[in-house]
Amino acid sequence: MGMSAADNRKRAYRGRPRLRSDEETRSIVLEAARRELQTTGFNATGMEVVARRAGISTKTLYRLFPSKAELLRDLVSEHFDQFAIEFNLRRSGLVETEVGLNQMLSFYAGFALHPDLVSLQRVILQDKSNFPELAASFYAAGIIRMAGDLSKWLRDQVACGFIHVDDCEQAASFLIGMVVFEPQFAALYEGKPLPSRRQIEQQVRSCIALFLDGCRASAPTGALSRPVERN
Amino acid sequence: MGMSAADNRKRAYRGRPRLRSDEETRSIVLEAARRELQTTGFNATGMEVVARRAGISTKTLYRLFPSKAELLRDLVSEHFDQFAIEFNLRRSGLVETEVGLNQMLSFYAGFALHPDLVSLQRVILQDKSNFPELAASFYAAGIIRMAGDLSKWLRDQVACGFIHVDDCEQAASFLIGMVVFEPQFAALYEGKPLPSRRQIEQQVRSCIALFLDGCRASAPTGALSRPVERN
Repeated sequence: MGMSAADNRKRAYRGRPRLRSDEETRSIVLEAARRELQTTGFNATGMEVVARRAGISTKTLYRLFPSKAELLRDLVSEHFDQFAIEFNLRRSGLVETEVGLNQMLSFYAGFALHPDLVSLQRVILQDKSNFPELAASFYAAGIIRMAGDLSKWLRDQVACGFIHVDDCEQAASFLIGMVVFEPQFAALYEGKPLPSRRQIEQQVRSCIALFLDGCRASAPTGALSRPVERN
Repeated sequence: MGMSAADNRKRAYRGRPRLRSDEETRSIVLEAARRELQTTGFNATGMEVVARRAGISTKTLYRLFPSKAELLRDLVSEHFDQFAIEFNLRRSGLVETEVGLNQMLSFYAGFALHPDLVSLQRVILQDKSNFPELAASFYAAGIIRMAGDLSKWLRDQVACGFIHVDDCEQAASFLIGMVVFEPQFAALYEGKPLPSRRQIEQQVRSCIALFLDGCRASAPTGALSRPVERN
């Protein structure tokens, strides 16, 4: 890198041979886009700013990424591919139900509640009318894939007799909703800071405890609760 | 109503006395805005269309609602006020834990997964940079208020010895995430149809069963699960 945006643009204009492969430039652009997402949310003028940040001409940028939608799509798939690789590395292994659930949910929550991913969601939802298929692929790659992997794992646990679940897909979406919904909603709507690593871990532990053992007291359950006071 | 938009506009221009109270006109406008939300998602030209749908001049519309943000804010608070009234009517009463949870969660899910509310969310997220305080109040009125009421009720159940929960606020947000996250996400990102009344009821029943009793099999739990096969 080491060159200023102006130097780079000069080079581009003078038609000198490219010193970097397109592949390298693509990663520099994706990194620039990621930073742009976090600062301005990648608004209308975003493509010019990304080019400037990446130190390339907008012409080069548009050669590599013909539209903002394609740049966003690549950002999304880069995120999810990385996630899938790491997730697959982790989900193997001979572990107890609690331990396995903990590994998967912590990893997924850390991913879904990462500032980069929440910024991407913000942009996708904002520009949804412009790139509906991007929102759909975000859904497919994000929730569907994760819920699929998790429910497969749950079915395995059912087969081994460790848990009793009728509908493992539903159970997977319950688990994901428990750890992700509230913090993601708070960040998207209210701009609340995302939970720390430690808070996510605590959240995941409570979620798993509830999922496995519930919260019903051992006392008989036919009893009526006292009326709730109105305030 | 019975008058065409053109008639109404003529009346407005000629300065004839108003035949409707502002209060009545407001409800007609809110109803028109609600329909506009469902068809176009209330885009940039929305205010003119709302005026036309309501059969009033844009001048009158802007007198009653000085900006699109204020119109949306009134739509949101109308929704949530109605919700709060009905929710309060329901949460009293001498009921079993299951029954109470079922009443509250079904009612809340029916509200949070109603097409009108999801359309409103879509617009709020799309225009969030223009009206950030609207998104924040949506969060406060929607999640915070509901989670607050629900956690108060859970604390009551803990006090009566019916359930064991350390952190009732967290438990409330788990319950909400379980019933709302997946269908809302699918509708917002992929445009999937929202669940039917019957699907919501089924979802709520499974959620409560899991919340109260968990899914751990009664066998000893120290055992190791077999490794998950990769596909």
